[in-house]
Amino acid sequence: MTTPLPPGSVIGILGGGQLGRMLSVAAARLGYRCHIYEPAANPPAGQVAEKTFTAPYEDAAALADFAAGVDVITYEFENVPTAALDLLEAARPIRPNRRALAVSQDRIAEKTFLSGIGLRTAPFAPVNDLADLDAALARIGAPAILKTTRLGYDGKGQARIKAAGDAPGALAAMQGASAVLEGFVTFSHEVSVIAARGVDGSVAAYDPGENVHRDGILATTTVPARLTAAQQQDAVLIAARILNALDYVGVLGVELFVTPQGLLVNEIAPRVHNSGHWTQNGCAVDQFEQHIRAVAGLPLGDGGRYADVVMENLIGEDVDRLPDLLREARTAVHLYGKAEARPGRKMGHVNRIRPRS
Amino acid sequence: MTTPLPPGSVIGILGGGQLGRMLSVAAARLGYRCHIYEPAANPPAGQVAEKTFTAPYEDAAALADFAAGVDVITYEFENVPTAALDLLEAARPIRPNRRALAVSQDRIAEKTFLSGIGLRTAPFAPVNDLADLDAALARIGAPAILKTTRLGYDGKGQARIKAAGDAPGALAAMQGASAVLEGFVTFSHEVSVIAARGVDGSVAAYDPGENVHRDGILATTTVPARLTAAQQQDAVLIAARILNALDYVGVLGVELFVTPQGLLVNEIAPRVHNSGHWTQNGCAVDQFEQHIRAVAGLPLGDGGRYADVVMENLIGEDVDRLPDLLREARTAVHLYGKAEARPGRKMGHVNRIRPRS
Repeated sequence: MTTPLPPGSVIGILGGGQLGRMLSVAAARLGYRCHIYEPAANPPAGQVAEKTFTAPYEDAAALADFAAGVDVITYEFENVPTAALDLLEAARPIRPNRRALAVSQDRIAEKTFLSGIGLRTAPFAPVNDLADLDAALARIGAPAILKTTRLGYDGKGQARIKAAGDAPGALAAMQGASAVLEGFVTFSHEVSVIAARGVDGSVAAYDPGENVHRDGILATTTVPARLTAAQQQDAVLIAARILNALDYVGVLGVELFVTPQGLLVNEIAPRVHNSGHWTQNGCAVDQFEQHIRAVAGLPLGDGGRYADVVMENLIGEDVDRLPDLLREARTAVHLYGKAEARPGRKMGHVNRIRPRS
Repeated sequence: MTTPLPPGSVIGILGGGQLGRMLSVAAARLGYRCHIYEPAANPPAGQVAEKTFTAPYEDAAALADFAAGVDVITYEFENVPTAALDLLEAARPIRPNRRALAVSQDRIAEKTFLSGIGLRTAPFAPVNDLADLDAALARIGAPAILKTTRLGYDGKGQARIKAAGDAPGALAAMQGASAVLEGFVTFSHEVSVIAARGVDGSVAAYDPGENVHRDGILATTTVPARLTAAQQQDAVLIAARILNALDYVGVLGVELFVTPQGLLVNEIAPRVHNSGHWTQNGCAVDQFEQHIRAVAGLPLGDGGRYADVVMENLIGEDVDRLPDLLREARTAVHLYGKAEARPGRKMGHVNRIRPRS
């Protein structure tokens, strides 16, 4: 068991987007200071952090400088290059650990890991060429979805295959990247569990939220989700199994499909998750603070839900509705400090708070 | 009516303590960036702000530099020197306005203003020498309390007078500063109202909180406060009368004594107030965001209370209880990032959240 980081310690965060920004604020609430490492200039997290390093992940000197000034390193996104992680890990602990990153950076590794610990996923098969794809389609069947194995998020790097004839076009859309074919799953709705594991191995999960996507991007998360008591328990146990199997420290997001045959794992994210933003206005300890607690070796906090919440993402020009949103009753607005509202860009979110049902 | 500051604008905050820190976080949530001006090095607010100016209030060049980089100026404490305000106001709007500062920087001006708008205060009299004090005691009676007219807070610059014989000692304790004698008020408890007024003149008040002090420093604030419905309404109307009379923009704290004859104004603070920290975990829009909304010309937000809260200040070595506090259910911890826990120093606070009664 590691000694907790004393107040005043510095937490290094890889990535300066909105997740890093909200992690930095949560860390401050616990008395920690944050340093941000981000290749892009003027990152949202830099506005609320003590120090910001603007340098690419290939800059060994900047990485060393960053690591030397922090006590522990965490990240807001899972696609940190391996070479950078090697350099950083030689200097300071990285939490969550490398295994969590390796598993979640690669869809095949992820599904293989999940199946290996007894969890259900969509049927899948690796695809490197048209022969692979034809064979995979013959086994899994259409409709199916072809995805790049790495660096996919928010619906990017994906192609639907409605019938075998779509195969060549879908493969071309991968632009030569190695891919995975996933069988289409019939599900009634998607939920996610945000769960945390501390350095002492204790686990805590938030109530599952129900997610609605639009154009491949999360649109809303609603708590409580439509789940039976048994499904709710199952969701929490699935998350705990993943956390324990990875010897994980921090917050993890698990997306689950609700099917007539039970819950099926869609994907995992080794970080705070967009579908957990509702916790900012529904719990004494939100997902950002919970992650910082875990990473800092503090005890996990009380994530019990005291309100019903609907989180709505503000994507692109959704943010033009701000004047109305600011006037809404029982509505908390969270903006990310991004200068330009591009289509598909997450500009902020609102949490609509209602008495607990 | 002023145009609202667009997201991305910069709010300048005079003072870098915990109030400036929590204002900065609230401003970020609304998409604003903050610059902090603070004479002391490494201020708590600097850890969560885009830029920090470390310079005395007598440094005209630094003040000009600070003002040039911000769109509007606000403050976390009322004792900003007048000369600095003159320089700053020539460059950028200061909200709340100078009149609010003038009134609250001087106890005599404050009580004269409050009496002038028909509000009840303790009986008071200016005291510059022993003759003044003797005359004041003859009129007001003992016990009474002698206070410096300026720069007093958290019980500093005060001396109790139990009987006329205490007068010379009490006067000596003022160290030559001009003072005010206040009659002792018999009250059952103290409450405070945190209220806001927008640039459009709209007013919103939070539910009053009940305050308990220890050694002259706020120890706890409890909502709901013990007040009849009529008293609760009276408290809100008192706050509104003050805000309107000052043509105020921002959040104001009003401390009230509950007496058998009704509510009596103890003092006002033209800023966010320690007794309003409970709003962080009891309302969709907390006092810090409400202040930023007002200062930025945005509509005031919904400050309706959705939970019962007890706020407890962590003073000095209270912060040693952190390991236990972090384990408490339904308890939100807020630390201020101060390196050293000196006696009497506010290190943080906790909000204990309960279902609304």
